[in-house]
Amino acid sequence: MTKKKIVTLPGDGIGTEIMDSALNILAEASKKFNFAYEVESFPFGGAGIDLEGEPLSEKTLTACQQADAILLGAIGGPKWEQAEKTPEQGLLQLRKALGLFANVRPIRVPEAIVHLSPLKEEIVKGSDFVVVRELTGGIYFGTPRKLEDDFALDTCPYSGEEIRRIVKKAFEMARNRKKKVTSVDKSNVLATSKLWRKITEEVAKDYPDVTLEHQLVDSAAMKIITQPAYYDVIVTENLFGDILSDEASVITGSLGMLPSASHSENGPSLYEPIHGSAPDIAGKNIANPMSMILSVTMMLRESFDQHEMAEYLEKICDEVMIAGILTGDLGGKATTSDFEEAVIQKI
Amino acid sequence: MTKKKIVTLPGDGIGTEIMDSALNILAEASKKFNFAYEVESFPFGGAGIDLEGEPLSEKTLTACQQADAILLGAIGGPKWEQAEKTPEQGLLQLRKALGLFANVRPIRVPEAIVHLSPLKEEIVKGSDFVVVRELTGGIYFGTPRKLEDDFALDTCPYSGEEIRRIVKKAFEMARNRKKKVTSVDKSNVLATSKLWRKITEEVAKDYPDVTLEHQLVDSAAMKIITQPAYYDVIVTENLFGDILSDEASVITGSLGMLPSASHSENGPSLYEPIHGSAPDIAGKNIANPMSMILSVTMMLRESFDQHEMAEYLEKICDEVMIAGILTGDLGGKATTSDFEEAVIQKI
Ligand SMILES: CC(C)[C@H](C(=O)O)[C@@H](O)C(=O)O
Ligand SMILES: CC(C)[C@H](C(=O)O)[C@@H](O)C(=O)O
Repeated sequence: MTKKKIVTLPGDGIGTEIMDSALNILAEASKKFNFAYEVESFPFGGAGIDLEGEPLSEKTLTACQQADAILLGAIGGPKWEQAEKTPEQGLLQLRKALGLFANVRPIRVPEAIVHLSPLKEEIVKGSDFVVVRELTGGIYFGTPRKLEDDFALDTCPYSGEEIRRIVKKAFEMARNRKKKVTSVDKSNVLATSKLWRKITEEVAKDYPDVTLEHQLVDSAAMKIITQPAYYDVIVTENLFGDILSDEASVITGSLGMLPSASHSENGPSLYEPIHGSAPDIAGKNIANPMSMILSVTMMLRESFDQHEMAEYLEKICDEVMIAGILTGDLGGKATTSDFEEAVIQKI
Repeated sequence: MTKKKIVTLPGDGIGTEIMDSALNILAEASKKFNFAYEVESFPFGGAGIDLEGEPLSEKTLTACQQADAILLGAIGGPKWEQAEKTPEQGLLQLRKALGLFANVRPIRVPEAIVHLSPLKEEIVKGSDFVVVRELTGGIYFGTPRKLEDDFALDTCPYSGEEIRRIVKKAFEMARNRKKKVTSVDKSNVLATSKLWRKITEEVAKDYPDVTLEHQLVDSAAMKIITQPAYYDVIVTENLFGDILSDEASVITGSLGMLPSASHSENGPSLYEPIHGSAPDIAGKNIANPMSMILSVTMMLRESFDQHEMAEYLEKICDEVMIAGILTGDLGGKATTSDFEEAVIQKI
């Protein structure tokens, strides 16, 4: 087996801390499983602006393009908020340049932390769904875009093909799950949503084993709270996906536990926690590295077919948590390194 | 005092039932308070399509324009979903034609039904905020709008003035409340949101007694669940307002309790429940009329300055609920007419 090339973009805030932890754990586990890889880290986001004057430099982008997989920590912070170039622009450029059209966010509420959910236990129990968000189209990238003194305009375009490929992705995933796709749109108002619904119906014909239903985005925003266990695979456009996946993420009780994957047609995939750079707790060694570790296990499965190793790592992390070694977000007192060391010791 | 002219648009589904109940109660209470008014009902939504071939006929629109206030029940249903003209189009036309730019949705969780919330009691307790949604601009009405076979496009425009007047409204409301405005945008991505943020900062200068803060729409979607009691007045653009106000509405545990008001610069205001026409329970005399009754009391206060009467009516309804006369959505067995009769008896 040739060595896998992993590019890491630790980014800003807690990004660097949880990346370090996750990489140390990966290093330990990979010995056991004879998984051969090399890691190279590049500046990105705020760190990119500080070091290279760009949130996404040519060099960083080229490295990403040549990687087998990319791990991203987190980006952003008050330091760059008013800047002309922002970390967030770097993220949008990266998504576009790599063609990362399919953002996948699994929402699962582990038994062990169900009590941390803001929702009542009987409502949230058993929730296990995936939000599949279109990531390179729609109003995020549409032109014309105008910002004048007293007028502004954004444009939301979607081509049939952009819709088709993401909806297919959702149906493929549903096949390996509970076989239900909920497509979310605002077809009672938007033209793009009418096209979205039409194309989705067409795609559905190739998946007779999967149930398709449509929901309006406002209804979905309600049902994610009142009946989260109802969902299997939610598929939606870029902006709705941004809002709904963040909404969905908090029902788990801890943002510190949630990974995500972004896929392109053929190039490398990118894995990252769904939370931000949390400037308020950065540098204190108290962030929960689980979201980053689970991003690593997603990578092991989806980019490298290392299912056994991924499962092993997740099991060990579960055991460490059940043993009560928990970071602050989970109600415990463990530091980032406490958790990391406990995992490494068990490996 | 001249008679006030109230135009009612019962609409579809449970709209007609809860409108009847609320009007009967209003009739009874108005005797006690010497409130002189006349009511005329017009077809609208699906009922308009069935009766006049239009969800919003000229006649209905003219009546609304000449009214002192408008009460709307609910619109829509499976019958008209595939139709060329939809009830929803009528609603959008009505908003635009009357210039109803300011949609106000109070979210309050009454002590008595706090247990019905999907959120844990300690999280939802004390929540009392208002969502102020821009209702006649943005992507709902923007052109060009294209729907081709394999391509679609929507346009989201905002003028400075459109933003200014709704943000002012929010600040005015905050002055009479807890003096905090949370403006929600997506300024890290959208040009319209950048303008929104700039204008909001400008407006804020005239309200030094009110605190302004900005939140990204994805963060707000999270915080409405994790810390609803944090908010006072949320102000946002049309589409974000649609999603967030529906999301916020379910934390109360019953959609059947929530009214809303839509205001223009000078014309009549429109009052309506925030829920839909609920075709599944229509015609069964089991819908909760509270949302419609509270729409009436909002009208009494905001269009007719009848504060005493509004307060009186709300107190009586509270007493009826506390006495255990509750519709199904509140966990009780009372029918719509049971509830109505109990209220009328108490008046
Ligand atoms: C940082 C921001 C541009 C980004 C987005 O809106 O896509 C973030 O919220 C996300 O969801 O990854
Ligand atoms: C019916 C629909 C067009 C409408 C909207 O999106 O504005 C509704 O959802 C609402 O919130 O009043």
